Amino acid sequence: MNYGKFHIYTGNGKGKTTSAIGQAIRCAGTGRNVYFVQFLKAQITGEQKILTKIPNICFKKFGIKEFIINNNIKKEHFIQIEKGIIYLDNILKNKKIDLLILDEFNLVLYYNLIKLDKLKEIIKICKTKKIELIITGRYLNEEISSLADLITEMKEIKHYFKKTLARKGIEY
Amino acid sequence: MNYGKFHIYTGNGKGKTTSAIGQAIRCAGTGRNVYFVQFLKAQITGEQKILTKIPNICFKKFGIKEFIINNNIKKEHFIQIEKGIIYLDNILKNKKIDLLILDEFNLVLYYNLIKLDKLKEIIKICKTKKIELIITGRYLNEEISSLADLITEMKEIKHYFKKTLARKGIEY
Repeated sequence: MNYGKFHIYTGNGKGKTTSAIGQAIRCAGTGRNVYFVQFLKAQITGEQKILTKIPNICFKKFGIKEFIINNNIKKEHFIQIEKGIIYLDNILKNKKIDLLILDEFNLVLYYNLIKLDKLKEIIKICKTKKIELIITGRYLNEEISSLADLITEMKEIKHYFKKTLARKGIEY
Repeated sequence: MNYGKFHIYTGNGKGKTTSAIGQAIRCAGTGRNVYFVQFLKAQITGEQKILTKIPNICFKKFGIKEFIINNNIKKEHFIQIEKGIIYLDNILKNKKIDLLILDEFNLVLYYNLIKLDKLKEIIKICKTKKIELIITGRYLNEEISSLADLITEMKEIKHYFKKTLARKGIEY
């Protein structure tokens, strides 16, 4: 099977992370090995409870309780991302991966928590090893976008967010 | 929990159905009851193998092997949709539902396989019963769009489809 494409799900609308979850489920359902690596978020989510129970999905999280708001990056964010990169280096070297998902990784780059060259190296390794790669998040970097095989912009046409608090099972 | 919003995932890009799958997983992970009803498609997919195993997700499919191409609607399409509507009427009346997903239902309406009024009735029942409703598919109807609380357009910026055949675990 011809794997090794690089997808980006970006934009300001709802559906980027959920789409990556759906793709993980679809791929795992065919018996393939999926690594779902979530950055910046630490909140326990509905998806986490199911993804962690599926044998051929490996779900990992590198974030802190507080998401980055108003560019307020904390030392703990750096520490978590650093741990995440060590984890990525390790699995890319040692594990059989069919689909690798780096959730919110566009933001990790946007906030300079990873170097552009490091991300380009990860993309290159995935291409070489025929690993399907998905990166999600707002603020897509132009150089990274030029390397993608597929980009979907999840565009907000209408959203209830201004009127509704985040709800368990829908927003997280 | 304040459920009962109506979401639409539309557009020409990849991510509509996968996003609905992700939402199903997130919601089911919090112990809620999810009904995932897929229309027009009959192919066995990766997601199906996992969704059908999750106790509080009820996954149903009303489609035939051939998707509608060039407006070529077969009698079997009508028969399947009719069965699907009977199923919907039944669960909306008798089951405890937190999240209802009608995958490709925009297309069902677009091809006149369901009446606009019938869809409006379903939307109204979900609102009344505080059922979160997700409809996916291209060709969004304007009147339906005016009833939505959230619309995301999955917009294709780049796609490899022209160069790659559909791959198991990624496209289906």
